[in-house]
Amino acid sequence: MPDDPVGLDPRSPEDGPRPGAIERLDESECLRLIGAERVGHLGYTSPVGPTVLPVLYKLHERSIVFYTLQGTFTDEDLRTGIANAEYRVAFEVDQFDPEKLQGWAVVVVGSAHHVDTEAERASIISAGADPWPEAGKEHLIRVQPIRIAGRRRHGP
Amino acid sequence: MPDDPVGLDPRSPEDGPRPGAIERLDESECLRLIGAERVGHLGYTSPVGPTVLPVLYKLHERSIVFYTLQGTFTDEDLRTGIANAEYRVAFEVDQFDPEKLQGWAVVVVGSAHHVDTEAERASIISAGADPWPEAGKEHLIRVQPIRIAGRRRHGP
Repeated sequence: MPDDPVGLDPRSPEDGPRPGAIERLDESECLRLIGAERVGHLGYTSPVGPTVLPVLYKLHERSIVFYTLQGTFTDEDLRTGIANAEYRVAFEVDQFDPEKLQGWAVVVVGSAHHVDTEAERASIISAGADPWPEAGKEHLIRVQPIRIAGRRRHGP
Repeated sequence: MPDDPVGLDPRSPEDGPRPGAIERLDESECLRLIGAERVGHLGYTSPVGPTVLPVLYKLHERSIVFYTLQGTFTDEDLRTGIANAEYRVAFEVDQFDPEKLQGWAVVVVGSAHHVDTEAERASIISAGADPWPEAGKEHLIRVQPIRIAGRRRHGP
């Protein structure tokens, strides 16, 4: 991973606090922030190139849980066809105010694990981590973070 | 490109209008929607895997214009090292209300063109398409769409 996967601003955190300063967020703050949101952005390399999709998600035991749609490209794209080999994805959540030029972004990198057993699925649902109960029973994906990085930009 | 790059919902548009119906957006509506926003998500395959970054952008003559930061990974990642060979990226904009379960998303796929000449840069700035005037003179990237696709989900 690049050292700074969140590129909202050119300046390094060593510049110190001032208008427009960038603060590096530690992992617990990143998890707190993404635990309070519901819409994130999934990025991955589909067979025809990079793709970004918005997804409704929940944070569940330090992993990101969201639905994909069995039989559609999202599901097929995210399967390697090799047992236990999982697709690498990026998952991003942010809140950025373009008027005040302030906000934060968190990027999680990890592997897309397909929740294929009923037991694992049930444990997620029963923990209250169903990311979209209204959508019915679709296919669950769980991203276990390999790396979590976040930045906050103080405006203006 | 997959037929449906915006995967907010499993149902096909042929299902017709009803709660939760998905509407395919035509290109002019996609451009109108992204022309009214300022924060989008850039997705691309960095040397170490997929990445998603929030960027401040503007729509300029049917292309997406945003700053990257010269000398940082975003700039280096998006250069192929081959003259006139440009990096393929995805650029996504959405507004989705997780409470009402309604909103829209537009995904643009195109090549990341580096605005390396002062003439091209000046034409973008003078057209009022500076995506972040407050940030000073950083490096401009322009994405000319190869494909534009959008979906609107009607709640609830």
